[in-house]
Amino acid sequence: MFNSFGEIFRFTTFGESHGKAIGVVIDGVPAGIEFDEELLKNELARRKPGKNRFATQRKEDDIPEVLSGVFEGKTTGTPIAIVIFNKDQRSRDYSNIKDIFRPGHADFTYFYKYGIRDYRGGGRSSARETAARVAAGAVAKMILKELNIEVLSGVIEIGGIRAQKEDFDYAKNSSLFALDEEVEKEWIKLIDKKREEHNSIGGVVKIKIKNLPIGLGEPIYYKLDNVLASAMMSINAVKGVYIGNTNSHTLKGSINNDQISKDGFISNNSGGILGGISNGEDIEFEVYFKPTPSIFKTQKTINKNGDEVEFLLKGRHDPIVAIRGSVVTEAMSACVIVDMLLLNMTRRMDYLTTIFG
Amino acid sequence: MFNSFGEIFRFTTFGESHGKAIGVVIDGVPAGIEFDEELLKNELARRKPGKNRFATQRKEDDIPEVLSGVFEGKTTGTPIAIVIFNKDQRSRDYSNIKDIFRPGHADFTYFYKYGIRDYRGGGRSSARETAARVAAGAVAKMILKELNIEVLSGVIEIGGIRAQKEDFDYAKNSSLFALDEEVEKEWIKLIDKKREEHNSIGGVVKIKIKNLPIGLGEPIYYKLDNVLASAMMSINAVKGVYIGNTNSHTLKGSINNDQISKDGFISNNSGGILGGISNGEDIEFEVYFKPTPSIFKTQKTINKNGDEVEFLLKGRHDPIVAIRGSVVTEAMSACVIVDMLLLNMTRRMDYLTTIFG
Amino acid sequence: MFNSFGEIFRFTTFGESHGKAIGVVIDGVPAGIEFDEELLKNELARRKPGKNRFATQRKEDDIPEVLSGVFEGKTTGTPIAIVIFNKDQRSRDYSNIKDIFRPGHADFTYFYKYGIRDYRGGGRSSARETAARVAAGAVAKMILKELNIEVLSGVIEIGGIRAQKEDFDYAKNSSLFALDEEVEKEWIKLIDKKREEHNSIGGVVKIKIKNLPIGLGEPIYYKLDNVLASAMMSINAVKGVYIGNTNSHTLKGSINNDQISKDGFISNNSGGILGGISNGEDIEFEVYFKPTPSIFKTQKTINKNGDEVEFLLKGRHDPIVAIRGSVVTEAMSACVIVDMLLLNMTRRMDYLTTIFG
Amino acid sequence: MFNSFGEIFRFTTFGESHGKAIGVVIDGVPAGIEFDEELLKNELARRKPGKNRFATQRKEDDIPEVLSGVFEGKTTGTPIAIVIFNKDQRSRDYSNIKDIFRPGHADFTYFYKYGIRDYRGGGRSSARETAARVAAGAVAKMILKELNIEVLSGVIEIGGIRAQKEDFDYAKNSSLFALDEEVEKEWIKLIDKKREEHNSIGGVVKIKIKNLPIGLGEPIYYKLDNVLASAMMSINAVKGVYIGNTNSHTLKGSINNDQISKDGFISNNSGGILGGISNGEDIEFEVYFKPTPSIFKTQKTINKNGDEVEFLLKGRHDPIVAIRGSVVTEAMSACVIVDMLLLNMTRRMDYLTTIFG
Repeated sequence: MFNSFGEIFRFTTFGESHGKAIGVVIDGVPAGIEFDEELLKNELARRKPGKNRFATQRKEDDIPEVLSGVFEGKTTGTPIAIVIFNKDQRSRDYSNIKDIFRPGHADFTYFYKYGIRDYRGGGRSSARETAARVAAGAVAKMILKELNIEVLSGVIEIGGIRAQKEDFDYAKNSSLFALDEEVEKEWIKLIDKKREEHNSIGGVVKIKIKNLPIGLGEPIYYKLDNVLASAMMSINAVKGVYIGNTNSHTLKGSINNDQISKDGFISNNSGGILGGISNGEDIEFEVYFKPTPSIFKTQKTINKNGDEVEFLLKGRHDPIVAIRGSVVTEAMSACVIVDMLLLNMTRRMDYLTTIFG
Repeated sequence: MFNSFGEIFRFTTFGESHGKAIGVVIDGVPAGIEFDEELLKNELARRKPGKNRFATQRKEDDIPEVLSGVFEGKTTGTPIAIVIFNKDQRSRDYSNIKDIFRPGHADFTYFYKYGIRDYRGGGRSSARETAARVAAGAVAKMILKELNIEVLSGVIEIGGIRAQKEDFDYAKNSSLFALDEEVEKEWIKLIDKKREEHNSIGGVVKIKIKNLPIGLGEPIYYKLDNVLASAMMSINAVKGVYIGNTNSHTLKGSINNDQISKDGFISNNSGGILGGISNGEDIEFEVYFKPTPSIFKTQKTINKNGDEVEFLLKGRHDPIVAIRGSVVTEAMSACVIVDMLLLNMTRRMDYLTTIFG
Repeated sequence: MFNSFGEIFRFTTFGESHGKAIGVVIDGVPAGIEFDEELLKNELARRKPGKNRFATQRKEDDIPEVLSGVFEGKTTGTPIAIVIFNKDQRSRDYSNIKDIFRPGHADFTYFYKYGIRDYRGGGRSSARETAARVAAGAVAKMILKELNIEVLSGVIEIGGIRAQKEDFDYAKNSSLFALDEEVEKEWIKLIDKKREEHNSIGGVVKIKIKNLPIGLGEPIYYKLDNVLASAMMSINAVKGVYIGNTNSHTLKGSINNDQISKDGFISNNSGGILGGISNGEDIEFEVYFKPTPSIFKTQKTINKNGDEVEFLLKGRHDPIVAIRGSVVTEAMSACVIVDMLLLNMTRRMDYLTTIFG
Repeated sequence: MFNSFGEIFRFTTFGESHGKAIGVVIDGVPAGIEFDEELLKNELARRKPGKNRFATQRKEDDIPEVLSGVFEGKTTGTPIAIVIFNKDQRSRDYSNIKDIFRPGHADFTYFYKYGIRDYRGGGRSSARETAARVAAGAVAKMILKELNIEVLSGVIEIGGIRAQKEDFDYAKNSSLFALDEEVEKEWIKLIDKKREEHNSIGGVVKIKIKNLPIGLGEPIYYKLDNVLASAMMSINAVKGVYIGNTNSHTLKGSINNDQISKDGFISNNSGGILGGISNGEDIEFEVYFKPTPSIFKTQKTINKNGDEVEFLLKGRHDPIVAIRGSVVTEAMSACVIVDMLLLNMTRRMDYLTTIFG
């Protein structure tokens, strides 16, 4: 379970930030799907580092190599392995981080958990691992496309400044994946300021899933909401997740309940999920990212011997992890939805008689 | 996976709100634990309905029967089955809810997912299921006690009014499990008002876990934080979860990073988790509950035929689900921690040579 | 995983031989199945002890109580819990087995594995646990019945004497579940002789599954054959399993290969499975049972202190475990087939578009 | 689960016979193991095709590339990905097998299950996949070596001719992995004859595991024997498995029971497993392989349209799959044992207090 996600549509990732390669093996992919290699490349390009000044300047082409599971342009039902060889593994001098624990990073916990730590750029704990998730998400999207289901994402808040609208179309082409073109200008100023100050900033991503059938989600412990939450919280730097109206915990029942008419639910405070199962409305939720822990200011920490040291990081890092993170939330959401579709296939006797009868 | 939780310490629940019984089978319990039946009864008593006016007036003794897995006062390593027979299944007249979908409940989604619905008091989707989790949590606590690990919970916010302090000792004996004795008085007024208005209200629970060893949590997809989030979001009425400082997404990195001294982390914005692994500080997180969907005001909904109807619920329900919910968050947290302890046993070769060498 | 079996149709058993109860929770049952309580009772009656002199004389009614998951005669998609309370737990004197390890039993291994042992009649390691499997198998059979799939079993060999024909209809009503009425007479003599000698004898069961669709089984590690083998080998006293022609390992390829005509496979040496997937022919395999380890002759063993002792068992036991074991092989087979049917639902994109499109 | 094996030490394989690469991702490897790359290469060399006339003449170097999970010569606790690029994928003419179903192969079942089939040399169903298992087994052996546990294998029977002794040392260097140097001469004659006749032959492999601690195996459904059986039966061409004395099903209890003395079990008919748990004796079992289905004689079959055709295979294949298969049984056994060791770490409270106390 450690490095795998999903029950039927189940992917396993591997690889370290500055190892030879990162990659993913996607199992449980149904046979007979048109494999859209362009879609795969485009999704990886959206997450790719070095695109603009809001992302790390690490240079990686992130070209995926599909090693298995596709034959004559279609999925065969066998595992799809995708590998991305790391290009930018310059034999850096790691001496300044090798023996110390960077604040806000996993250096400390990996070292004490495993007794050994791959100190090259965070090793396994680096957000570089998320490229493998995006590759899995791309395959999930190939399935969703055939069912006309759409997963959208965008940045809704940065540094406490909130978007005033949710324009997912704009977000697609925005360099910040911003949901609000006007507010984006403020955000750009804020981010540039933080970067000049050698600092970083937190943000919030919103996800919307459209055209989902009623009935996805498997109570009690594989509910649509708890699995989405697990998926989101497994992403680097994510600290919180909230489904539906993010004020629900302050409201009274008469306001929060979504009453129902012939044409569907009259409101959508639930975020499209009731009892852990999709109700046919849009799925909506928000994901809270902490600021990038990699900042270029002197910080106090300790080394492997327990000695206190002052430490100044050098290198290249996203000033705000939520931006590229939004692509990852989308990928993980797509994977969850596909898994739920597949599981739902097994939940009714009339489905069985339809297929086998 | 549907009704099971955990990887090694894995429990499976069953039962409907107004069926014969609810219960749990807990697998993966290590052998040789002193089975503390009092602890089990006490935990169930904390969650029990009908204790005071802040909980549903349903009458249940919630007496657990331990059917297996314990011999001469100790766990044997075999599954522990615990059953609670439902007492208060009075043969009610369900005619007013049988064919309609109560707003905010899972009636609509269960019906369309499964094509069949146990309409007696919510059936499987009822929060009554959580008694089974509390039983599992009690067994988890027996293990944690031997390792001196403590899981604490309390209500930190109701209807938008926030506690000014976090007094987990006070919470233990408070009828609201309140973290702040002063603010509790306001809360009581608010809740009483909502009940008089036939309404309900949302709230927030805080969890603190003390004395956890460094190293718990299994990257990348079974991190301590994503599994805790999954556990919390699987609880009825929970809509959000946030680990550590709940403002992290608004902060800059220099503030949010927890710097490190000889004596440990200088702050705890991370909530005790870095890279998905416990860092030795207290684990801290908040859980957001929506208001109880069961309110006693007329609401619009539809029936099974799709006709619009007005609907007025009768019955007995918690005016605020967060209160009894706090006991459930604690139980689920205890189960997660035990599972992580067990998994961590397998992660280092030197542990193997210690046991087998 | 310890006490659970299956991936989607997943059951979990609990209970000790002389504890309060044994039982099973069956998860992943599709909604909308007619729940046939008579079928459940009949299956348990087939396995029940005390029916005739070829079974243990323990007195148990084995009446199942269905606690959940069924509503108005149909499955609801929620877990089905079935409990059988132990009646015949007479407060026996266990002093003669309490501290020693019975040869051929799990006493020794349970004690050294767990450091504690429920010595009352074998505890968890008793074949009494298989009643819970038979209950799960009965639910699986309710599903198979709707798809016209039949699982048959019978005893094909006892003490090295082999049946000359495979009459599964005769087996159903035979007191030995014998596949051959003539040979059965010899078997009865042999068993009676062994019982008089206070001894026991081994045997072989054959399973045949009819009318299975092509395509069941999930390569590479959840093949139909490897999962069937796992299911069989998990049954008490089973030491071997062989799929198809049990001489295949001695044959040459030209003989063993099943050539194919328009009307299907010309022979069935494969036992209906190729590459781990059903090929539309009957599934056929044999299951090898060791003799009952409980014999009433003096044996050498050691006690908990490591002292050598001579030991004479008293009590009541099946002289040949393969007979009642055949009912268990059938139940486990039914569970495997249902799980494979459900998994196969998820393996083709055209199935998804059929259900969701 | 489809392409993954194991619960904690869990590997996932991918790749097709004539695709770009095959490989494996091994998760759950404890941190801190000396990674012995020579051992890995040697194990793959033992299974490699083209070594002698008893194996297929396909030319593959089978050089493994380790992409992740190892740092400065040690395992880090993160997934170890190993890839083997296929060299000998000459763009063959597949026209003679593209549209027909080879008898004894998975062509028929893959086509009807998935609706699509990678016809290049068997695709995913090819025994080439087992190289990935051998890589996983090599990593398992690195762990076993530190605990002094040894997994041995050898061929015990070919074409019905049985070895008269079990010389595992001789087997290591024998070209047939033969357990008996004398009988091997007969076997060689038999195999050469079968090859001249364009035919193939079946065989039996014996496994012995030495120095295993008492207590491995997790009742009831993850017993040592049922998991070993599952592992073996997942291997291409394996049709049967038998633990311990392969005559147990013909014996009486007084003979089959292993009595116990101060110095251990007096006999080992059980094959070292009681109640699914290792008892400290050698683990012993046999694995039955059918003859290679690839023979070079005319056979009857049908094509994708259902037309009957006569078919003559060309190419290169092992005349007896049991020989190279023995290396795979060993690898799978090693993986099972490591998984059982890791699981056993979690089964006793005193182990937890030893590590965490």
